[in-house]
Amino acid sequence: MRGTMLYGPGDVRFETRPDPTIAKPADAIISISAACVCGSDLWPYRGIQTVTEPTPMGHEYCGIVEEVGRAVTSIKPGQFVIGSFFASDNSCPHCRIGYQTSCQHVEFVGGAQAPLLRVPLADGTLVATPETPPDELIPSLLSTSDVLGTGWFAADAANVKPGSTVVVVGDGAVGLLGVLSAKHMGAERIIAMSRHESRQKLAREFGATDVVTERGDEGVARIKELTSGIGADAVLECVGTQESMMQAIRSTRPGGFVSYVGVPHGVALKGEELFFTHVRLHGGPAPVRRYLPELIDQVWSGKINPGKVFDLTLPLDQVAEGYRAMDERRVIKTLLRP
Amino acid sequence: MRGTMLYGPGDVRFETRPDPTIAKPADAIISISAACVCGSDLWPYRGIQTVTEPTPMGHEYCGIVEEVGRAVTSIKPGQFVIGSFFASDNSCPHCRIGYQTSCQHVEFVGGAQAPLLRVPLADGTLVATPETPPDELIPSLLSTSDVLGTGWFAADAANVKPGSTVVVVGDGAVGLLGVLSAKHMGAERIIAMSRHESRQKLAREFGATDVVTERGDEGVARIKELTSGIGADAVLECVGTQESMMQAIRSTRPGGFVSYVGVPHGVALKGEELFFTHVRLHGGPAPVRRYLPELIDQVWSGKINPGKVFDLTLPLDQVAEGYRAMDERRVIKTLLRP
Repeated sequence: MRGTMLYGPGDVRFETRPDPTIAKPADAIISISAACVCGSDLWPYRGIQTVTEPTPMGHEYCGIVEEVGRAVTSIKPGQFVIGSFFASDNSCPHCRIGYQTSCQHVEFVGGAQAPLLRVPLADGTLVATPETPPDELIPSLLSTSDVLGTGWFAADAANVKPGSTVVVVGDGAVGLLGVLSAKHMGAERIIAMSRHESRQKLAREFGATDVVTERGDEGVARIKELTSGIGADAVLECVGTQESMMQAIRSTRPGGFVSYVGVPHGVALKGEELFFTHVRLHGGPAPVRRYLPELIDQVWSGKINPGKVFDLTLPLDQVAEGYRAMDERRVIKTLLRP
Repeated sequence: MRGTMLYGPGDVRFETRPDPTIAKPADAIISISAACVCGSDLWPYRGIQTVTEPTPMGHEYCGIVEEVGRAVTSIKPGQFVIGSFFASDNSCPHCRIGYQTSCQHVEFVGGAQAPLLRVPLADGTLVATPETPPDELIPSLLSTSDVLGTGWFAADAANVKPGSTVVVVGDGAVGLLGVLSAKHMGAERIIAMSRHESRQKLAREFGATDVVTERGDEGVARIKELTSGIGADAVLECVGTQESMMQAIRSTRPGGFVSYVGVPHGVALKGEELFFTHVRLHGGPAPVRRYLPELIDQVWSGKINPGKVFDLTLPLDQVAEGYRAMDERRVIKTLLRP
């Protein structure tokens, strides 16, 4: 087959690779129906994270099961399945409590920007849809694999409840789906921080009631102004930089919640400042597996349409253009079809 | 009157000072029945926190109201009252949600290691007991003013519930009362980290089921061993150093709670490490006022005896020895009587 490899900053190649095979008895091989480019793929693409060797790319996926290992019991060939970017056994103590991305047997799933993908721990990782979905549901189903699951976790970890005042820092696909998630969880007011017109528009469509274009200290001042000097109940930090993290923390009321779901890059939190803000902090790699059944159900029944974050669809062999378009912020998120 | 002043590291003086007077209409003057030396007083005493000018010391107090300003309506002369180290109006949005130490009109209460004390925002800050307490209740009532309230907040902020496995980092008075609080909230297992025999003994008396003497990475390994490799549900960080903070974070299971209640000194948390631990972090200056009515009631009815943390009682004019004894860890906590 041909699959996507990152050789170094800006150097994405779609090239011949060996077909994946069952390497362990709990594996499954799936035929990819759709994959996409993640905001986190841009860290190494931009050279902010070092690429030490050519790396198979892609960790968001859905598709048809082709083959399963001999230890796989619940997942069957022919099923349409979705899984998280981290494979998990879904049975260890961390999984049982809902933190599958901290599974005691966690394995990263890589190489999904290709026609075929090996998924470890298939029974624990994959969730099958009721039947093979119609084509128009594919983008939304794909989004549950990471970007919706991550936005959902951001809202959940920030304790968004009916009536909450919520701020979302970051207008990438995760931030936008954080808006959708907060709306779903009953937030009364959702303030999206964005200075990009098409993203502001989608944020409003997903439920944002206000848009703030200021950043840093000015952004914080604007949030305080919009919340009668109190700060927000819940702030979803969906970027991962020092500036966005401090903006989130300083926008939150005492006793309020800050969630952070993008891998922090170069972030250091001063204990004393954090202490006097009185905020509650919770984040990490989103345990998407916890939410998958519910999210698939929401999409299946047409209650939510998170697939709208994909504003560019390309055939897999044009994956390099998909990265470029996201890097240059010409598009929000690129969907790839084999 | 004579009151306690800190001039610099190790330099505590009990010296003539002006009697406090009503400076603002919401003030009260109270005649101190008992005060004490706080673990946090040791930071400037040890020179870790700079003393820029001679500073009146003491912020834990209980006593009889002598006089009130013209704006005070609920607190009356003659009442026995207890208040927090931060005065609060108890009516602003932050107070109403239970974060009185982030009150929009917060003022620090200083100078309690003296016979008389001015307390700002008296109606919001002070809570009166049902009647003048018998002498034997004074130590426990005094403890509600800070050290018990802080241990209680530590357990509450760490979400201690019936059945929880709890770790307490720090065997000072706050840590020991964190043990008592966790026990009260129904923790099944309480692991106290202490290498000091008399403190271990009191921890067990307050409800600790295990004692761990190791620190740092070894301490973390021991906690993991005691929790089948999972980590604790709730960890109460009651010290405030980088080492104790990282020990707390690394001892917690994914999705578990870390509370921190000592002002962090030189602590910096790396975003990436925090992210992958999946812990929930919450702390700050304990909103003691939130808990005062309940804690006073618990003490009044004899259900808890937190006053046991005071293992040295001195007359006020021997306050310097009270600091020395705590600094040298000869005693847990010094109670001072005028």
